[in-house]
Amino acid sequence: MPYDAHTSVADLRRAFHRHPEPGWREFRTTARVVEELESLDVDDIAIGREALAPDKRMAVPSAAELEPWLEQARGAGVRSDLLDRMEGGYTGVVAVLEQGPGPTVGLRVDLDGISMAESSDDDHRPTAEGFQSEHEGYMHACGHDAHIAIALGTIDAVRNSDFSGTLKVFFQPAEEISGGGKAMAEGGYADDLEYLFALHIGLDHPTGEIVAGIEKPLAMAHLTATFEGASAHAGKAPNEGGNAMQAAATAIQNAYGIPRHSDGMTRVNVGRIKGGTASNVIAEEITIEAEVRGETTGLMEYMRTELERVCYAAAEMHDCDVTPRVISESPRADSDPALRELVGSVARNVQGVHQVTETTDFGVSEDVTYLMERVQAGGGLASYVLVGTDHPTNHHTPTFDVDDESLEIGVAVLSNAIRACSSQRP
Amino acid sequence: MPYDAHTSVADLRRAFHRHPEPGWREFRTTARVVEELESLDVDDIAIGREALAPDKRMAVPSAAELEPWLEQARGAGVRSDLLDRMEGGYTGVVAVLEQGPGPTVGLRVDLDGISMAESSDDDHRPTAEGFQSEHEGYMHACGHDAHIAIALGTIDAVRNSDFSGTLKVFFQPAEEISGGGKAMAEGGYADDLEYLFALHIGLDHPTGEIVAGIEKPLAMAHLTATFEGASAHAGKAPNEGGNAMQAAATAIQNAYGIPRHSDGMTRVNVGRIKGGTASNVIAEEITIEAEVRGETTGLMEYMRTELERVCYAAAEMHDCDVTPRVISESPRADSDPALRELVGSVARNVQGVHQVTETTDFGVSEDVTYLMERVQAGGGLASYVLVGTDHPTNHHTPTFDVDDESLEIGVAVLSNAIRACSSQRP
Amino acid sequence: MPYDAHTSVADLRRAFHRHPEPGWREFRTTARVVEELESLDVDDIAIGREALAPDKRMAVPSAAELEPWLEQARGAGVRSDLLDRMEGGYTGVVAVLEQGPGPTVGLRVDLDGISMAESSDDDHRPTAEGFQSEHEGYMHACGHDAHIAIALGTIDAVRNSDFSGTLKVFFQPAEEISGGGKAMAEGGYADDLEYLFALHIGLDHPTGEIVAGIEKPLAMAHLTATFEGASAHAGKAPNEGGNAMQAAATAIQNAYGIPRHSDGMTRVNVGRIKGGTASNVIAEEITIEAEVRGETTGLMEYMRTELERVCYAAAEMHDCDVTPRVISESPRADSDPALRELVGSVARNVQGVHQVTETTDFGVSEDVTYLMERVQAGGGLASYVLVGTDHPTNHHTPTFDVDDESLEIGVAVLSNAIRACSSQRP
Amino acid sequence: MPYDAHTSVADLRRAFHRHPEPGWREFRTTARVVEELESLDVDDIAIGREALAPDKRMAVPSAAELEPWLEQARGAGVRSDLLDRMEGGYTGVVAVLEQGPGPTVGLRVDLDGISMAESSDDDHRPTAEGFQSEHEGYMHACGHDAHIAIALGTIDAVRNSDFSGTLKVFFQPAEEISGGGKAMAEGGYADDLEYLFALHIGLDHPTGEIVAGIEKPLAMAHLTATFEGASAHAGKAPNEGGNAMQAAATAIQNAYGIPRHSDGMTRVNVGRIKGGTASNVIAEEITIEAEVRGETTGLMEYMRTELERVCYAAAEMHDCDVTPRVISESPRADSDPALRELVGSVARNVQGVHQVTETTDFGVSEDVTYLMERVQAGGGLASYVLVGTDHPTNHHTPTFDVDDESLEIGVAVLSNAIRACSSQRP
Repeated sequence: MPYDAHTSVADLRRAFHRHPEPGWREFRTTARVVEELESLDVDDIAIGREALAPDKRMAVPSAAELEPWLEQARGAGVRSDLLDRMEGGYTGVVAVLEQGPGPTVGLRVDLDGISMAESSDDDHRPTAEGFQSEHEGYMHACGHDAHIAIALGTIDAVRNSDFSGTLKVFFQPAEEISGGGKAMAEGGYADDLEYLFALHIGLDHPTGEIVAGIEKPLAMAHLTATFEGASAHAGKAPNEGGNAMQAAATAIQNAYGIPRHSDGMTRVNVGRIKGGTASNVIAEEITIEAEVRGETTGLMEYMRTELERVCYAAAEMHDCDVTPRVISESPRADSDPALRELVGSVARNVQGVHQVTETTDFGVSEDVTYLMERVQAGGGLASYVLVGTDHPTNHHTPTFDVDDESLEIGVAVLSNAIRACSSQRP
Repeated sequence: MPYDAHTSVADLRRAFHRHPEPGWREFRTTARVVEELESLDVDDIAIGREALAPDKRMAVPSAAELEPWLEQARGAGVRSDLLDRMEGGYTGVVAVLEQGPGPTVGLRVDLDGISMAESSDDDHRPTAEGFQSEHEGYMHACGHDAHIAIALGTIDAVRNSDFSGTLKVFFQPAEEISGGGKAMAEGGYADDLEYLFALHIGLDHPTGEIVAGIEKPLAMAHLTATFEGASAHAGKAPNEGGNAMQAAATAIQNAYGIPRHSDGMTRVNVGRIKGGTASNVIAEEITIEAEVRGETTGLMEYMRTELERVCYAAAEMHDCDVTPRVISESPRADSDPALRELVGSVARNVQGVHQVTETTDFGVSEDVTYLMERVQAGGGLASYVLVGTDHPTNHHTPTFDVDDESLEIGVAVLSNAIRACSSQRP
Repeated sequence: MPYDAHTSVADLRRAFHRHPEPGWREFRTTARVVEELESLDVDDIAIGREALAPDKRMAVPSAAELEPWLEQARGAGVRSDLLDRMEGGYTGVVAVLEQGPGPTVGLRVDLDGISMAESSDDDHRPTAEGFQSEHEGYMHACGHDAHIAIALGTIDAVRNSDFSGTLKVFFQPAEEISGGGKAMAEGGYADDLEYLFALHIGLDHPTGEIVAGIEKPLAMAHLTATFEGASAHAGKAPNEGGNAMQAAATAIQNAYGIPRHSDGMTRVNVGRIKGGTASNVIAEEITIEAEVRGETTGLMEYMRTELERVCYAAAEMHDCDVTPRVISESPRADSDPALRELVGSVARNVQGVHQVTETTDFGVSEDVTYLMERVQAGGGLASYVLVGTDHPTNHHTPTFDVDDESLEIGVAVLSNAIRACSSQRP
Repeated sequence: MPYDAHTSVADLRRAFHRHPEPGWREFRTTARVVEELESLDVDDIAIGREALAPDKRMAVPSAAELEPWLEQARGAGVRSDLLDRMEGGYTGVVAVLEQGPGPTVGLRVDLDGISMAESSDDDHRPTAEGFQSEHEGYMHACGHDAHIAIALGTIDAVRNSDFSGTLKVFFQPAEEISGGGKAMAEGGYADDLEYLFALHIGLDHPTGEIVAGIEKPLAMAHLTATFEGASAHAGKAPNEGGNAMQAAATAIQNAYGIPRHSDGMTRVNVGRIKGGTASNVIAEEITIEAEVRGETTGLMEYMRTELERVCYAAAEMHDCDVTPRVISESPRADSDPALRELVGSVARNVQGVHQVTETTDFGVSEDVTYLMERVQAGGGLASYVLVGTDHPTNHHTPTFDVDDESLEIGVAVLSNAIRACSSQRP
């Protein structure tokens, strides 16, 4: 069921696959989504600042990091009127389809690719069939290209269906860096949602399987901390200055030692470090990048607070300053059983679906939880639906790919679930 | 040259060797010194509180630790009138010999033994000749017994000489734990000293060698720190409480990492640790005992300040409290070249002296430096004289012993040096 | 339903409450159990070595620690023939009741008290009613006294019932230190069990509630590690020797940093530390006591292996030796759903039972898992039954107590469950 | 006394000041030295491989780092015949002046600048007078430009003097990174030296002061260590892989904790660190750059060995690999008193010299010690001469400069010292 005469959902996904853009730099992707929405004749298209709470964006790159991607989009002939509205990294779209009285239903997908070079191997289908990434060093290796295509296909399907109500589709930027979820959740469009569907493809589930609602995404926070001391000559004046290297090492050792929590699973990692100038100079500045996670938002906050305490004390110990900064964060939110049930019963009737799984544990983090949390706080229901796809290798690997067949299944499940919402209403 | 008709200096030293007592518990030793002084008919004998600044004592044992030693002395028939004046650990004596107009000259020796079982080996002379320690687990293994005997012999020699002036001899308690030096320096008797001699025997120099004045005793501070957190069940509530074990481990690691100092040599050690209740309980309380040293008093203070900072920050990191306490401390003070010269020229004329060494580096710590510092601050001169002795094994070993011959040499060098002071005067 | 004419289960529990004895030192307790069993006329009574695999005992105290407890029992008039059989810390009993053809059913309870002074508060019922601990500093603060009494009551009830088969009751020593479970599991008596019931009282469940089978006791290992370096004078030779203090601190810091595991919950704690001789001596020997736990036996083993690796590397880093030793250990074992169901259906018909809970998570460790594991490995079924009791304060607190009423309920539930086993048989 | 008619030593120093080049990249500097030597008509000029033991070079940059500097020299019109001989970073020159029978005397100076942007402040004389660095980000901020000019002036002065013997002047590359000293010491030219003078300017001594021979340069080693573990997803699989971040933090903490040494001063510093890919990935690779120093070569080797041990154990603890690599190293060597005396007596007769200081402690490191050590091992004498200069700010600061007057003084002192060597000969 192609969403229009000349473009199948699979073709559309291939188009997006060619131009992966990292978080807050989805200029070309956003513009293409807008053009597709225009051709679908939706009722409202909010772009960038209109779609987001501008001051709630997290993990926004510097102007110097944004610029080349904007230029690249401009160079590729992307419409200036659209790019102008995205300047400063205000990517992302919300599309609204108004179709009579009935519930307001949301669907959220994500736009960004990741910084990983795509495989040029002949066995890799995107390479073999000529739709591999044209942005060197970047790739849609997590299926967000498929998510976008399914969302567009779903809009088309709903538009042509008996759905009565309002559909809002959130094309969220910067999911990989947990940067866009909060801004989209607080941008206004989510305020009146009675139902929210989120979508992920694959995750080791094959084509034909649907998971009606994922549970237990971990709450997460990503932090950086720069220890600032004072340099001195390590031979002549080892006692002078403040040794940022010792402060950072002490902080790292103790970060991993933050106690396990009796209420459930926690995580901590210091994944990057950089600093110092030369072996014979007491290091003046060391920056670490860390993350903490928790099975609940509270557990994540416990870890974050402890990590901050560790950093402050380590700095004090070595006469340094530090201000840990939260770069991005996402809470935990679970799928509502009632909405999971609706998805399950709809999915069982979709052609190509062989197995419907009620729920699975997610085990990692996703900032769609900000949207889910907001909807649930307002009394609405949310479910994070998994559409199985045969993927040759793991997500976030250079040979990741998806199965075309699963895309149509995704459109069918989601559009039927959305339609079912309108008949749920009392 | 025995100091009186019936007791040689060597015999006297053997008497003291039999009854080693640890710091602030030199009850029997003090009483015996007083009795010897009485028989020497000195002009003033100040005991305990009279000889010391009572509130400047450091590293004073608890009442429970003092009591058994007081009882033991009482049980051995030591005079009650003397013991009563020492109650509470106020040991130590200052003897004053007034012998006409002239300079006020000081001599300082130390009284305490150490907690080490003396060798019962037949090759060990004190055992073979029957004067080994009668206090099990304690021993005069650093030669303080010899120091006392030499001091008494010196008083006798000076008394019978042409010395004109005042001689004050300080029998200081608690040298091994750096506890008595400050109290004696500030007890009043040192205020008018124009010259001060301190004495140590041995230190790897043989009988017949005199070192006119030792240099560079290290400044030292001995600290304890108790990390107090809150216990919790390690299985059920690992996140609760405050983990004193983690705080202590962090402090220890960082204590050893206190930077070397460009101004000179420093030392740090955490030598003892104890705490916690069971493997399945988050440790509530851990106590460490540490020391720092420095080539100068300033360097020691740098180390002490940094160690305290490390402890405070480590406690804060793990939600514990800590108050590092300085148990004892000693500054650095060096021998004055002018007085070294006087000692050297005197020593060269003493029978049995084969070698006079101008100076050597001490390398460890001694709280006589408080007295030296006080004398030097008042414009006086001080020298820390080393009297060589053939000792079979190192100081602080169970088979340490001294050579009788060196005792007479010590008396001759010191009494002649004291006499020389009176002729120095303009 | 008192188990004999003159002694109620509650009275019996009070008798045991008076004489708490720690692990492997339950001399008086064992003897009293034996006497009760004799009066109950059971068919076989195995004591100490006969009841246990002698070489599988763990966490056995030293002779010096055992002796005073044996002497105390002797002094209290405990039968010599019994004490002689327990010499060396071979406490514990297995009682066998042979009652015709049918299944072999086991029941396991534990004997030891803990080292905690019992409250002398008037509000504390044992104190108010005069049955508080007569062993100063020790207390039955976890309900093992109740367990013993219920087990004896159960034997009496089964003996007088229609039960056909064999009942074996395991009175296990040293549960609190995870020392006796393995020895009892491998002592021979557990080899032919088709059913095994274990028992715990309280754990925050009120009188009238039964939990049919507890899940998820944590697997646990308790270890000690002694870091052995070489001492040296911290001022004169800081570079000599091997610093056991630094090795231990490094090990502790890194022990807490052992990574969380994706398969489930883990725990690590270093709960005690001791070592070193003086602040001015490089520490030659430091001993730590640690424990690790895991949601599964495999997770515990991961933690134990990592902890050992940390210790070895820390020792190597500081030129020390170390040999981590496992003092005691217990695996994870869960209650079988089929046996849980049997307990549940029996419990629902017991007077006084208001609520039957299918299962709960245990969250800590118990070495009954050795017995459960053995029975399950042989094809048998095991369930760890919780008998609710109103307890005024937490287990392991000085004011812990149990509700008399719950004791009779425990006897009824367990004896009826045991009877039900014989009718289960095909 | 300009060394030729049209160029003063000061002008020459300005010329070298304009083109600072870092270690092993002194292409233009080497070529200019060669051209000056040609005009001075010396007897032998050895360049690069001929002047050095090629396989003893240390801290050699990669081809990618060498290339731009070679290209820059080529672009500036430097003679190809010279550049070709230096390809691969074989910079450096030895000049030989044969002037009849007599001793073989060496003089060593260094060629490299440092990576520091020179001040563009109007108060900075090189800027004000137009001879500031033309290589952006690089500067002669330690006076090596002055050293070269003085050496060339000295050759000219000796050539025109009564000196009888052989003079060898070593223009050593890569002093700042301790890379060239060993290669030059072992290149053959130093084998027959009877006397060696090394030269440094400034170091807080004013114009008019000469230090006849510097003592106690610290022995030094510069190391890197890359901890290689295995990456894993920090949320999904924290227990997998080997955490290079934890290994590095453990190594750093323990590196600073390497015990002080009783034999003398030591130093340790970890000055740079870099590694890891993202906050949510267990770090696979972390590289640290460290240095150790010692008051003697033995003490440096103690520190290096301990640092290596720490790295290996830290890697093992966290299941990582590491191979610490020594990048460069220099021993300790002191000036010979006899040669110091010669320099002192010569210097006292040089116009402009107001003060001759016998010796001072250097306190940092210098790889000229390789040459000194070699000469001394062969029975020769070496002295490291300091020529005072008024320098407005510290060495290694952007406003460092030297006083022209001191350059002529340097030439006079060194050429007269060299002449004096020939008359020393018996």
